[in-house]
Amino acid sequence: MKVLALDTSNKQLTVAILDDNQILATETTTVHQKHAEYLLPIIDELVRKTDLKPTDLQRIVVATGPGSYTGIRIATATAKTLAFTLGIELVGVSSLETLALNVSKKESLVMPIFDARNNNVFTGLYEIKDDGVTTVLEDRHTDFDKWLDQIDNDGKNVYAIGADAKNFEEALTNKFGDKLVFMDSFDNLPQAARLGLYGQTKEPVKDIHSFVPNYLRLTKAELDWREKHPGEEVTSYVEKVD
Amino acid sequence: MKVLALDTSNKQLTVAILDDNQILATETTTVHQKHAEYLLPIIDELVRKTDLKPTDLQRIVVATGPGSYTGIRIATATAKTLAFTLGIELVGVSSLETLALNVSKKESLVMPIFDARNNNVFTGLYEIKDDGVTTVLEDRHTDFDKWLDQIDNDGKNVYAIGADAKNFEEALTNKFGDKLVFMDSFDNLPQAARLGLYGQTKEPVKDIHSFVPNYLRLTKAELDWREKHPGEEVTSYVEKVD
Repeated sequence: MKVLALDTSNKQLTVAILDDNQILATETTTVHQKHAEYLLPIIDELVRKTDLKPTDLQRIVVATGPGSYTGIRIATATAKTLAFTLGIELVGVSSLETLALNVSKKESLVMPIFDARNNNVFTGLYEIKDDGVTTVLEDRHTDFDKWLDQIDNDGKNVYAIGADAKNFEEALTNKFGDKLVFMDSFDNLPQAARLGLYGQTKEPVKDIHSFVPNYLRLTKAELDWREKHPGEEVTSYVEKVD
Repeated sequence: MKVLALDTSNKQLTVAILDDNQILATETTTVHQKHAEYLLPIIDELVRKTDLKPTDLQRIVVATGPGSYTGIRIATATAKTLAFTLGIELVGVSSLETLALNVSKKESLVMPIFDARNNNVFTGLYEIKDDGVTTVLEDRHTDFDKWLDQIDNDGKNVYAIGADAKNFEEALTNKFGDKLVFMDSFDNLPQAARLGLYGQTKEPVKDIHSFVPNYLRLTKAELDWREKHPGEEVTSYVEKVD
């Protein structure tokens, strides 16, 4: 299966093209946050480098958030448009889970962390087992101390992963002591190539049109909309406001 | 330190640009083996994408072989020329050791394997410790069965790594049983980004001019030369024949 995988949830822009489990080409940059400007040209460039045409692609795998509003909107909008236009399968994977794929140590807990300022984080808790990645605690937007209070690592190593993880070193060390493990800068980078491998094991979405990013918190625009429409139920902010 | 890292030892072409431990941009392809045609344009493209000029680079790290004759000659010639022209530092790392960097499991043995046909391999044995990668048995070109006879893993896990490792699955399983671990296709790919991180911890070469690839076996041209010059001692094939 020819797969295009992409993740622009945060600072990184990472794109990969795979043929089943063979990684044909992958590119990752962390320099610009002009993801809107660079994403399509990089996809185009990699498709050409692998001697494929866009119509050869059979599945698109995208990291759906949480992360930067703009970043995850660009990735999901691009993935959705390509999947719809080409008439191919679309798979969404949590951006936190995408990062957790960098840890291969079995029987370990993995805590991907995106700093959301003021001691808030986007995080979740995953466990790496023989049969893959299991969610222990769902992704959330939370105060970091409240988050740590909920976790019992039961003697297992805890891999705190992501470029922001070290921002919480003190609280993490107090909680997990010598069971805490940080990763190096390579393993703290999400890899579209791993996302593309993992996304082949997942069920594609049933309805591409209703596929939306997973912000995990209200946007400024949504907060404004709610204020202007008190009492009105919002089922999908994106459909109503975008 | 601004670092350019590259490895075209085998099927992969992998290039990365780093600033100290930050990975600015990296690209890896496995599709073509036209490394001579693609390497410089990809370096140029990544330098531009990171808003650098070639003169901003301070060190070049290159995988020196073993591997495909042509591949390692292209990488080392490119690295040497750039380092000489820019007047910057040059670091060479074994291509097998570069691959071993993908294993981060401490207290494990790592055996990178490049298939050299007829049950011959390029291989070496490394151990991952707290303070980095240690060589247990030097890189060599050897018959695979003879190689396995020399190894005592002393109850440690053995990570057989590289796209070719599975070609030797039966012999490896007979030798190491349930201590044998294979990697997935992502971890079997050498990563210039890891090479660039590792190469910052190494001493640069003292004399760029005498820097040569590490073939670990005689080339056809060298065999021919020796035949034509019987009894003459060859200290550096590359200097005499290239």
